[in-house]
Amino acid sequence: MEEINSIVSAKKGKIDVTPIATLFRNEVKESVPANMPKPRIVAYLTTDDQGAIDYAKWTKIACNKDGIEFILKKIERVDLEDAIIDANNDDSVHGIMVYYPVFGGMLDAYLQDVVRPDKDVEGMSTTNRFNLYHNIRFLDEKKTKKCVLPCTPLAMVKIIDHLGIYDKSLPFGEHLKGKVVTVVNRSEIVGRPLAAMLANDGAFVYSIDLNGVICFQAGKRQGTIKMSETTVSKEEAIQKSDILILGVPSPKYKVDSALIRDGTVVINFAGCLNVDESVDSKCIMVPAIGKVTIAMLERNLMRLYNNQMQSYTGGAVASTSTATTEAQQ
Amino acid sequence: MEEINSIVSAKKGKIDVTPIATLFRNEVKESVPANMPKPRIVAYLTTDDQGAIDYAKWTKIACNKDGIEFILKKIERVDLEDAIIDANNDDSVHGIMVYYPVFGGMLDAYLQDVVRPDKDVEGMSTTNRFNLYHNIRFLDEKKTKKCVLPCTPLAMVKIIDHLGIYDKSLPFGEHLKGKVVTVVNRSEIVGRPLAAMLANDGAFVYSIDLNGVICFQAGKRQGTIKMSETTVSKEEAIQKSDILILGVPSPKYKVDSALIRDGTVVINFAGCLNVDESVDSKCIMVPAIGKVTIAMLERNLMRLYNNQMQSYTGGAVASTSTATTEAQQ
Repeated sequence: MEEINSIVSAKKGKIDVTPIATLFRNEVKESVPANMPKPRIVAYLTTDDQGAIDYAKWTKIACNKDGIEFILKKIERVDLEDAIIDANNDDSVHGIMVYYPVFGGMLDAYLQDVVRPDKDVEGMSTTNRFNLYHNIRFLDEKKTKKCVLPCTPLAMVKIIDHLGIYDKSLPFGEHLKGKVVTVVNRSEIVGRPLAAMLANDGAFVYSIDLNGVICFQAGKRQGTIKMSETTVSKEEAIQKSDILILGVPSPKYKVDSALIRDGTVVINFAGCLNVDESVDSKCIMVPAIGKVTIAMLERNLMRLYNNQMQSYTGGAVASTSTATTEAQQ
Repeated sequence: MEEINSIVSAKKGKIDVTPIATLFRNEVKESVPANMPKPRIVAYLTTDDQGAIDYAKWTKIACNKDGIEFILKKIERVDLEDAIIDANNDDSVHGIMVYYPVFGGMLDAYLQDVVRPDKDVEGMSTTNRFNLYHNIRFLDEKKTKKCVLPCTPLAMVKIIDHLGIYDKSLPFGEHLKGKVVTVVNRSEIVGRPLAAMLANDGAFVYSIDLNGVICFQAGKRQGTIKMSETTVSKEEAIQKSDILILGVPSPKYKVDSALIRDGTVVINFAGCLNVDESVDSKCIMVPAIGKVTIAMLERNLMRLYNNQMQSYTGGAVASTSTATTEAQQ
């Protein structure tokens, strides 16, 4: 606790995550092999949503700069499933992504699982998420194909790590021991994987959505997660937190700043701000994380690329140079 | 069309599906082997919802009468995933079911996929649904383990078949050719699989939910489904329909009876009635389908049981005696 407070007083205010993104993008750039097929992402867009179009544009610019081919395809939503299956079967495509929502609801969850897990660059398929929750690191029994983690939660773990909040003097898996985190969002693609990843690193996590509060902490077996019910209210959870993560996709949702303790690390990934900007006078405030998310997308793509190239060359391609990290060892 | 009208005038009024359920339950009863481990379903209940408790009770009574062991386990929702994994690994359990909602939303979709596809007696896992949409009949490459179809939509296909609406003089896969169906519900566990199954049998299907209308029809390759957009409104779709299937889980939702043509087959699976009862004066009206759904659950269980027993005995167990059907050939 004291440790966090000291870091925060040193870095109080708004944090721009560009340097963290640059660090990871440089690693990716160095790891793209010169005399091999170019790593390729195909991304499907089914709407005219300007937010998605802009995000796709930024992603394309970043990828192209770093040696990755990013092909954006506009497509009718009724044709998306067939297109994904074609991309699954196309050896020149190493990663597949989709801008959601497409139909909305459970049909979108189905489509996430049409993407083959070994091309699931966003880490959204049930297989990759199940593996995350159960400490399974490989997609195959021979342990040659490494899993990927969902980009957005992975980006937040990396940001928290680079803010110096992980206590590296503690044993591995306990670097967040004693820290309380609240995550306001329990979606299957961000909030719940994030809660699990932070719990896996030793934190006690309150996971909040419209239905209430659920706790996440490390399970008895290493790498497993224990969920539990609680009588702690949303407000109490926020008050107890060393780290507060906000991801409600509505500008109307604002956490009352008075609930947030001095020295809390506040990370906002909602696209809109879920808290009054003035909290940066007493907190570390990360208002947006998109650049690091794109870096994680690139990083995931290189992992999938290496998995796939290994299958063709029998393991001749060197693995990426990314160092062991909290989240992916 | 004329054919449907003639059937409807012969059977106009409210239809009790008990005889259809009995037919399938008798088949199941005869197929349970005498000197073998008893077929076993484990069902998990996480709520105090009286509807779910009652439904579990009826299912248990039916299963026990037909030679199937049905074990209902009350469990905390936070412990459900571990319990499912234990049941996945327990050779004495042949089928696993869960009463939803548990957490609600996408987390429930995740839990559906924690159930191993070869024990997924309700046919709710992404694997079994993907296989349905893509005409894949077996879970394994050796083609020894047959897939199952989701119970509730399967029950409706069987009811429509037993009402005499399938035209068996037409080639297989076209028995519903020329028929227009509207399904008011596009959930991943009932409405969409049902739309696909009816399209697969030759029908033109309007699939309606809060977001609008989508059409389903047979794809070019046999067994595949083509989705398409439409400008037809919900009301127009209902007016055009030979068969109208209602599944909105709210008593407030009522289709205007004036939209429904004389002679339409109306099937209501919502738990509450989505149309005024008086439509039975001009239609075949199936107000509830639960008994046939339970029969399909038993039928699916026997398929999974035989799949599993085959693995142990190398195929020595006779397959169930159920005849070739529209939906499962």
